Amino acid sequence: MGLEETVDKMVKGEIPLHEADKYLEANAAMVARRLAVERITGVGLPNIGSTVIDYAEIKNRNAENVIGAAQIPMGIAGPLRVNGEFAKGDFLVPMATTEGALIASVNRGMKAITVSGGANVRVIKDEMTRAPVIKLRSVTHVSDFLSWFSSVQDKIKEITESTSSHLKYVGCSPYVVGNNVWLRFSFQTGNAMGMNMVTIASERACSFIEENFPGAKCVAVSGNMCSDKKNTVVNSLMGRGKTVIADVLVPNDVVKRELKSDVSLINEVNLRKNWLGSARAGSVSQFNAHFANVVAAIFVATGQDVAQVVESSSGYTWTEVRDEGLYISVTLTSLEVGTVGGGTRLPTQREALSIMGIKGEEEGSSKKLAEIIASAVLAGELNLLSALANKELGKAHMKLGRNAKS
Amino acid sequence: MGLEETVDKMVKGEIPLHEADKYLEANAAMVARRLAVERITGVGLPNIGSTVIDYAEIKNRNAENVIGAAQIPMGIAGPLRVNGEFAKGDFLVPMATTEGALIASVNRGMKAITVSGGANVRVIKDEMTRAPVIKLRSVTHVSDFLSWFSSVQDKIKEITESTSSHLKYVGCSPYVVGNNVWLRFSFQTGNAMGMNMVTIASERACSFIEENFPGAKCVAVSGNMCSDKKNTVVNSLMGRGKTVIADVLVPNDVVKRELKSDVSLINEVNLRKNWLGSARAGSVSQFNAHFANVVAAIFVATGQDVAQVVESSSGYTWTEVRDEGLYISVTLTSLEVGTVGGGTRLPTQREALSIMGIKGEEEGSSKKLAEIIASAVLAGELNLLSALANKELGKAHMKLGRNAKS
Amino acid sequence: MGLEETVDKMVKGEIPLHEADKYLEANAAMVARRLAVERITGVGLPNIGSTVIDYAEIKNRNAENVIGAAQIPMGIAGPLRVNGEFAKGDFLVPMATTEGALIASVNRGMKAITVSGGANVRVIKDEMTRAPVIKLRSVTHVSDFLSWFSSVQDKIKEITESTSSHLKYVGCSPYVVGNNVWLRFSFQTGNAMGMNMVTIASERACSFIEENFPGAKCVAVSGNMCSDKKNTVVNSLMGRGKTVIADVLVPNDVVKRELKSDVSLINEVNLRKNWLGSARAGSVSQFNAHFANVVAAIFVATGQDVAQVVESSSGYTWTEVRDEGLYISVTLTSLEVGTVGGGTRLPTQREALSIMGIKGEEEGSSKKLAEIIASAVLAGELNLLSALANKELGKAHMKLGRNAKS
Amino acid sequence: MGLEETVDKMVKGEIPLHEADKYLEANAAMVARRLAVERITGVGLPNIGSTVIDYAEIKNRNAENVIGAAQIPMGIAGPLRVNGEFAKGDFLVPMATTEGALIASVNRGMKAITVSGGANVRVIKDEMTRAPVIKLRSVTHVSDFLSWFSSVQDKIKEITESTSSHLKYVGCSPYVVGNNVWLRFSFQTGNAMGMNMVTIASERACSFIEENFPGAKCVAVSGNMCSDKKNTVVNSLMGRGKTVIADVLVPNDVVKRELKSDVSLINEVNLRKNWLGSARAGSVSQFNAHFANVVAAIFVATGQDVAQVVESSSGYTWTEVRDEGLYISVTLTSLEVGTVGGGTRLPTQREALSIMGIKGEEEGSSKKLAEIIASAVLAGELNLLSALANKELGKAHMKLGRNAKS
Repeated sequence: MGLEETVDKMVKGEIPLHEADKYLEANAAMVARRLAVERITGVGLPNIGSTVIDYAEIKNRNAENVIGAAQIPMGIAGPLRVNGEFAKGDFLVPMATTEGALIASVNRGMKAITVSGGANVRVIKDEMTRAPVIKLRSVTHVSDFLSWFSSVQDKIKEITESTSSHLKYVGCSPYVVGNNVWLRFSFQTGNAMGMNMVTIASERACSFIEENFPGAKCVAVSGNMCSDKKNTVVNSLMGRGKTVIADVLVPNDVVKRELKSDVSLINEVNLRKNWLGSARAGSVSQFNAHFANVVAAIFVATGQDVAQVVESSSGYTWTEVRDEGLYISVTLTSLEVGTVGGGTRLPTQREALSIMGIKGEEEGSSKKLAEIIASAVLAGELNLLSALANKELGKAHMKLGRNAKS
Repeated sequence: MGLEETVDKMVKGEIPLHEADKYLEANAAMVARRLAVERITGVGLPNIGSTVIDYAEIKNRNAENVIGAAQIPMGIAGPLRVNGEFAKGDFLVPMATTEGALIASVNRGMKAITVSGGANVRVIKDEMTRAPVIKLRSVTHVSDFLSWFSSVQDKIKEITESTSSHLKYVGCSPYVVGNNVWLRFSFQTGNAMGMNMVTIASERACSFIEENFPGAKCVAVSGNMCSDKKNTVVNSLMGRGKTVIADVLVPNDVVKRELKSDVSLINEVNLRKNWLGSARAGSVSQFNAHFANVVAAIFVATGQDVAQVVESSSGYTWTEVRDEGLYISVTLTSLEVGTVGGGTRLPTQREALSIMGIKGEEEGSSKKLAEIIASAVLAGELNLLSALANKELGKAHMKLGRNAKS
Repeated sequence: MGLEETVDKMVKGEIPLHEADKYLEANAAMVARRLAVERITGVGLPNIGSTVIDYAEIKNRNAENVIGAAQIPMGIAGPLRVNGEFAKGDFLVPMATTEGALIASVNRGMKAITVSGGANVRVIKDEMTRAPVIKLRSVTHVSDFLSWFSSVQDKIKEITESTSSHLKYVGCSPYVVGNNVWLRFSFQTGNAMGMNMVTIASERACSFIEENFPGAKCVAVSGNMCSDKKNTVVNSLMGRGKTVIADVLVPNDVVKRELKSDVSLINEVNLRKNWLGSARAGSVSQFNAHFANVVAAIFVATGQDVAQVVESSSGYTWTEVRDEGLYISVTLTSLEVGTVGGGTRLPTQREALSIMGIKGEEEGSSKKLAEIIASAVLAGELNLLSALANKELGKAHMKLGRNAKS
Repeated sequence: MGLEETVDKMVKGEIPLHEADKYLEANAAMVARRLAVERITGVGLPNIGSTVIDYAEIKNRNAENVIGAAQIPMGIAGPLRVNGEFAKGDFLVPMATTEGALIASVNRGMKAITVSGGANVRVIKDEMTRAPVIKLRSVTHVSDFLSWFSSVQDKIKEITESTSSHLKYVGCSPYVVGNNVWLRFSFQTGNAMGMNMVTIASERACSFIEENFPGAKCVAVSGNMCSDKKNTVVNSLMGRGKTVIADVLVPNDVVKRELKSDVSLINEVNLRKNWLGSARAGSVSQFNAHFANVVAAIFVATGQDVAQVVESSSGYTWTEVRDEGLYISVTLTSLEVGTVGGGTRLPTQREALSIMGIKGEEEGSSKKLAEIIASAVLAGELNLLSALANKELGKAHMKLGRNAKS
């Protein structure tokens, strides 16, 4: 079937949009689908259609029913000096966003950090998790199951690690509600974010369990204690992806010169906004000003899973007034990033990673990315707290028609 | 200064990247900046540079220091039948994502919903909030302040509404911690998401308060009880943006035919995963499978604030086994969307909105968008619960190299 | 049937323990039951049997199947100076506890407060709540229900207030999950804690709803959003019982002399323990050191519902280093107390209330009690923070064999 | 100084109340203090004064400034059949409460359980925790500290276990916020609840840390991640005290005969109240109907730390409709109980423990107590859910003047 005919059949509803892939080569199918949508809806989609993405490359890997691309403005913040274990030196950081003032704001924070000697940063935990929920008959059945499960750890390790050479089994914490047990499996997944791998490994573990412990039934391979794309305390406490800490001591004169602000005022904003305010609001894991803004912008730029901004923005901003200046730290409890797989192979995203000198095949590159993100988050917090202390927020918006940040 | 010279100075560090805007026309500055980054980092960025975005249009409105764009594959899910107050009929829904299987998965859910008669959906609340934190001297000072504040509501209404013709003051709930008071201001903001407006209005209210109540000091115009880009119970309970409910009754045969699944099994997965699992994990507002996936993909496609996925993905999925089939509902407590302003004016995003027949200038268009998103979220939940019940998850990934969903 | 025979039948299992009340006068039944338990278990219970409680007075009001009483040591803390609206002057505060060091600890805090001029305290909200959960058919049914419910508020007020002359209807906030609606009814209940009253009133409202809105079904008169005897954010945000704030400015020399401590150290303990620690632990409403200890001891002494310590101990401790000394405040969001009904009519409990000059029949007496409790809680926090700063905790225990506090 | 003179001096304010202990024998001091309070306040306190407590026995161990006792009615629920590892057989359960209907209500639940064959119950974890907060200089300092701390575990074990022969070191999880580390130490403490022991051991560990890791400073031996007397997710996830699960399968006819109820209705109440309701309310750990009522009543009766009801009432009630009848389970995540020390040595409390055949010196007796409490909690949930399904609640109150339960 040719392109025109395929478009025609889609417009008439004789074949669904996804079947264009059956009749046409990938990129032709993408074009045909766009044309069909244009005719069905009566609107032109030239901009969506104008894309560097090769649909043949991403079909069944990154998206389906594709008609083109969304284009998000990408800007550069930095240079940002990072003193990490994997990221060392000055970095330009790509951020893709539609929110005015964000990049400029983070940029100012980066300058203050860089002239203060850079952000010190460490990844203190690195694990990806999946938590199937297992149904048993009764609490005594659960009690027996827990003993048995603890006795077969070597087997679980063997089975799960057999599913991928990149996977290393770290361990498993069981959690119980009556006759239900969640097995929160923890793995190391190299430079991949790893959800795919750990899902397959967990399914294999579940099959083993169902076959070897009579009466155990896996209700769902994801039982929400993983917790993927949800904000939960189990993620904050036990970590998911990378747990990263970053800090800097900004000398008094830098606070004054670069941030036009005052150490005590910034500290006061941090306490009353990020700690009292978040506590009063009933937050369980986000005692910060706007981790989400910086995380989201770098996630979009570098091909991370954007829905994981939900928990990747969890964490704490802590400041102290010291004789030398302002001490500020950020703690990201569950930053989920990868430098291979997923969206990182797309054209613009691959380039964005290159700007930071990140190569997926290099050992430790996902930790390097995590260190840079945490340092950028530190910059974002430092600047926004200063801006709030200075009462700059609304003024900036009025002047520039910008949108508000957190 | 010409383009070459400007690039040169940026590469040598003689001028910062953002100063290109000073010396060159907007789009030339964008190019110059990209060339400078290429030379600084030694990597080519042709794909980022290939963009339909006119930097002159977005400068100081959507992004700064721009070098080009990130391109995210955009696919189409649907048609999805929606029975809302604002969205009525069958819609094609644009989703921009890099996560394989997501669009196909939502698409299957949409088909099941559509053949079941469509998603019923209602926006039951619509308010945008900002919560400054005010410092007072003591608890008696607070007590006096609360009385005074309650007595000047008419004035607060007048002052805040004077800042924009699109703004309507709804009210304000005060929350106290010792000598601190958060004033959670609530406004209606038309078709705009509204953060910008409510920040300016809240700043104006704070000035009035500081001038008229001796000793009151506004510590920060955003005191984290807003709560913007954070997951908090105050948002779930009081709402932020749109509170939307959607449901469908899927007949038994549709469950079998379209979803290859079983009503009881789906219900069991929903209970043990979304309710027991989320509760056990220490979630406070996300008792769902993957609202975040669907919300994020539509947010990216339509130019919403991606960092707001954090709270826009809050909510509940509830299922019931009924004689006629599976009853499934979703409740989104704080869906923050707009159809004017922000990223909605960008070329691809504007087109994406058009696909759904959404025009920013039409009354109720932001509610229409909210109704479509909630219906798509319903489709995403329906399908993922089915897939989990069917143990399809890992298999799909192994077959297609796709990434896992929640 | 005589006492001996009744005992005999209970021992032989021919009649259950509660049937002693059928055959014997109340206090004889209490004795018979105790004798039966002694014979069944083979242990003497002379101490339990030695009580001032008249079972005839409390039967069917405070307890069933009674065999005597538990005796909890009651000590006195104070005098404590309170500057409230209802409690004004110096108070001796009865505390019943089995935890060594607690009373002495609170006593030291009270002295520091009193020499600093007393605790300033205000009740800023006073409402008792009950939240039935109503099941509807669908989200459109819910949407219609919300409109209807809002239109019958006058009727709801009339119906609920008709159930008791002490009850005043304040309002109702509805919360939705799919086809379920929680109606969180709020009432003023005079000096009674009021759970009884509001349950009866809410049942009446539910009957009205079921009769007048077709298809609405009340699943349970208590739907857990009340929230009684549970720790929830809805209680912290909206209040339950009394919301009380108390503070004091302790001069530097008083901190040194009475508390042997240092203002900065106390402030540091408060920040890192009560705010960072509680946040990191995943608390949603208890950012304090040991509200529960003081609340529990006064609740036991004065006949409050001890299970309500769970949410009555919710709240925040906030300190500031000021030039003049240490500013410390406590905020109790949901302190549930009464001065009539419940355990307040028991002999020792009535006396305990009298020690504080509290008479159930006096207007505002339950607020007076709330003000005294909040002030005592303030004393408890002040002293424990000092003790921790001074590293006194373990030493005290080693010396006295005392039990640790929070 | 004689009794009269001592009373006189207290009344005149020449000596504080606690100094009576200096001049008089313990019980005489108790009497003198009571007389002084009577004269100061002008109210007689004969009932408080009438007590079986020997102040000489409890002084400096259980309470200070004692003037007598609070008497709480103690009733008996049961017999309750328990199929535990430590508690096996039929038990009478002492409950001390002032809330009418509670004992009768639990009693009905116990009967239903017992005729169904008894409650199956297991203690699946048993640890007491203390979490000091340690301040370090920076995130790199933290990173070094974590490595060092992990390398000295043998030493930590040796040091902490040297403080008591009853103490066994289980391990320690560190949690980080910027430059702060919480060390959540976990111990086994035999039959003691153990707070005292673990505080002393943790202080010793902190001294070792401060002496051996340069720059580490223990800010507070209790950093609120313990978490004592607070409701936190770290307690729910990791456990504190005993983690206990109990269940029973109640045959359809027993539901009908004993509970006058219906399996489906009970299940529906449990889902919409305990799961949807608690989730919607923003609870993080209490997805139950009224654990607190039962836990509080047994805690008061048996001399447990009443303030610990706060977290000891955390947990989940889960029901299933099965062919054979109603499956119901309870999960108590952090039940803190002891059978030696604390209030367990008081006269009436010791007797209450004896009623259940519990002897502090017997190995496993604290687990036996935990098993009985969990089984009683199961009875309380079973009955209240039935009562709500039957709409019995308000009626019971109106008839008996009883107070409402949750």
